[in-house]
Amino acid sequence: MKVTPVKGTNDYLPKEVEIRDYLQQKILEVYLANGFEHIITPVIEDIENLDKSDGGENLNLIFKIMKRGDKLDKALASGVTSENENVLADMGLRYDLTLPLSRYYANNKDKLTLPMKCIQMDRVYRAERPQKGRLREFIQCDIDIIGSESNDSEIELILTTTKALQAIGMKNFKVKLNDRRLLRAVLMQMGFAENELDSVCITFDKLDKIGMDGVEAELTEKGFAKEAITKFTQFLEKNDFSLDSLKDMLEDKEPAESLEKIMTTVKALSAGAYDVVFDLSLVRGQGYYTGTVFEVESIDFKGAIAGGGRYDNLIGKFLNQSIPAVGFSIGFERIFSILMQNGIEIPDGSKKIAVLYEDGHLTEAVKTAEKLRSEGMIASLYIKPKKTGKFLSKLEERGYAGFYNVEQAEEVSYFGA
Amino acid sequence: MKVTPVKGTNDYLPKEVEIRDYLQQKILEVYLANGFEHIITPVIEDIENLDKSDGGENLNLIFKIMKRGDKLDKALASGVTSENENVLADMGLRYDLTLPLSRYYANNKDKLTLPMKCIQMDRVYRAERPQKGRLREFIQCDIDIIGSESNDSEIELILTTTKALQAIGMKNFKVKLNDRRLLRAVLMQMGFAENELDSVCITFDKLDKIGMDGVEAELTEKGFAKEAITKFTQFLEKNDFSLDSLKDMLEDKEPAESLEKIMTTVKALSAGAYDVVFDLSLVRGQGYYTGTVFEVESIDFKGAIAGGGRYDNLIGKFLNQSIPAVGFSIGFERIFSILMQNGIEIPDGSKKIAVLYEDGHLTEAVKTAEKLRSEGMIASLYIKPKKTGKFLSKLEERGYAGFYNVEQAEEVSYFGA
Repeated sequence: MKVTPVKGTNDYLPKEVEIRDYLQQKILEVYLANGFEHIITPVIEDIENLDKSDGGENLNLIFKIMKRGDKLDKALASGVTSENENVLADMGLRYDLTLPLSRYYANNKDKLTLPMKCIQMDRVYRAERPQKGRLREFIQCDIDIIGSESNDSEIELILTTTKALQAIGMKNFKVKLNDRRLLRAVLMQMGFAENELDSVCITFDKLDKIGMDGVEAELTEKGFAKEAITKFTQFLEKNDFSLDSLKDMLEDKEPAESLEKIMTTVKALSAGAYDVVFDLSLVRGQGYYTGTVFEVESIDFKGAIAGGGRYDNLIGKFLNQSIPAVGFSIGFERIFSILMQNGIEIPDGSKKIAVLYEDGHLTEAVKTAEKLRSEGMIASLYIKPKKTGKFLSKLEERGYAGFYNVEQAEEVSYFGA
Repeated sequence: MKVTPVKGTNDYLPKEVEIRDYLQQKILEVYLANGFEHIITPVIEDIENLDKSDGGENLNLIFKIMKRGDKLDKALASGVTSENENVLADMGLRYDLTLPLSRYYANNKDKLTLPMKCIQMDRVYRAERPQKGRLREFIQCDIDIIGSESNDSEIELILTTTKALQAIGMKNFKVKLNDRRLLRAVLMQMGFAENELDSVCITFDKLDKIGMDGVEAELTEKGFAKEAITKFTQFLEKNDFSLDSLKDMLEDKEPAESLEKIMTTVKALSAGAYDVVFDLSLVRGQGYYTGTVFEVESIDFKGAIAGGGRYDNLIGKFLNQSIPAVGFSIGFERIFSILMQNGIEIPDGSKKIAVLYEDGHLTEAVKTAEKLRSEGMIASLYIKPKKTGKFLSKLEERGYAGFYNVEQAEEVSYFGA
């Protein structure tokens, strides 16, 4: 039997779980205090729902669950090749919490009131190539507001998410914003066709990595109109991606003004605790975003620690009715790894005491332990081992405050006392 | 797109999640106070580990995850039929928390100290035929003690599990115990062969349902020796399954004496809060149990709400070394459904206040909300809707204590005040 957990998943030791529980509880507390409500959706989803969810690259990373019994036999009998492997699966592990939430709202809308503000903190799965900090099973901490078109919702999500990050001791981050509509308008003005925009965005997203020449080369390779590429290159060369200049450039001022309002309000209300910056190159992978997109970037550790945006069309895929929605998701594993690297300290919990007893004297030991517990301590029973000294030093290492020797002592012996 | 969650899984509404979170937190608190430590294992496991885990009937209920890319292509090219469908899968969803724990111990043993007492509260998956109270995705709350042969561990697990049940308001239950070794010894004395015992146990487990004649008929049908069946029927007819008479009957007194000690000690330490009874017909489905097995049975709602036992050989499958272990698992979904049916009340949390503001006045509303939060309240922002009265009455229904009208009021208006 294989001893290690499957690739991209982790076993968590007691000390790690203590910290994970603490962090998740803190984040949950902030979310709850801000009026969001905790909901739970299943980890497994219908495979068609996942496949049709506009999840971008994530759709290639879905773990598929095999059909069973007759259904599987029938699929196998139909002749499966690598071309139509999908007939073997009827469910999959969710790759995010947004798709399940959209289905959840459609399923339960009669029992819910709009605007609905909700929390999900739960596992998601992606078949990523394992690499540093990229797990295949990981926790996301999401808040979403469903049913409001106002960009007050974006502001509320940003303020609440950053408050949660601050509450768990995350420092030195900035908030980056963009609006999909803005980038699309810029590109269309350059002469790209509507159905080319997604592909151009994907290339543009690499500007940091491959530079302007790289972007030009890739766009040419993709076969876009030369004129559009030239205009776009000239635009990049100007190197002026400020919101003001974009507003001048574009006819529809609404997206830029909406972003301006969000940024100004967040800056004012967060009292300068972090930078809030416009970033035209911020795209985000998911195809389902329709407007504002945003990220929190750790300055020390590079890369996003939270991301989100507006997805006004996703719920409509489940209903005959379009429902606006916007969400923000903390990547819990990134946070956890940054905080562990920085050496996080969590508040002391209850004192842990080992209650040691001679074999055969359990009843007395249980009574002693119950007394300690009634005084607010954690009490753990152990039959006294042969090498008591070694055992006690291990307990001390593991964070025990002391021990109680049932047959010999009348009180707790504290380590180091 | 499909609006309902996949068969056997649930969407949980905010009010339900509040209760689920409360119950799980309470159970966790009891477990922690008793010196158990929280650990986390992945939901997905290697398919071979699952297949070879002696999980009994559960092995037929595993959700299998399809291989990906080249591995899948290769499997498909090899010619898959319903006979060898397993070549398509390399992972599966765990069907319990005991197998992952055994792997976990083997993987992390150098960082852990024996005896190790641990908690898992997490999702498991079984492809059950959906029926009342049987979900395909469900939560188990497990405590386990690894590394101790002493039946003090059984006592500790029973006392701690029943304390957790009491802490969440479960009443009117009894603890049933048996020892696999006892039942096996009885059957071997009747003349059944060692390799027949599991099959006989499965039939015997149905005594309640099919009666003595039914047991006899089924054993005959299975083709066991007539003499053994006759002896067994005579034993059943005597209808004396007391521990005392079994002790008289069997040469090896140890299993009976061990059970006697467990039962006497639990009875004494639980001060008669629940019955503790020996039940020779208690088998439990998993193949991996080696000694004591136990259940908590709800008297009002029939059926087990917690179950467990000793599995001294499972960890050995991962190591060259045999490590004793025993565990007890609360079936959280049963508990949740019983408590919901009985009408559970949980302690009031923080007061929930809706902060209503006119569109355009978010900043002032945020400041008001922050003030309320600093006073310990939950404050949720809402743009004032057109039909304010209807909106407010919905908030009241949803458990809000009152509202604060940012432009008009200077204080909270409480509902019903």
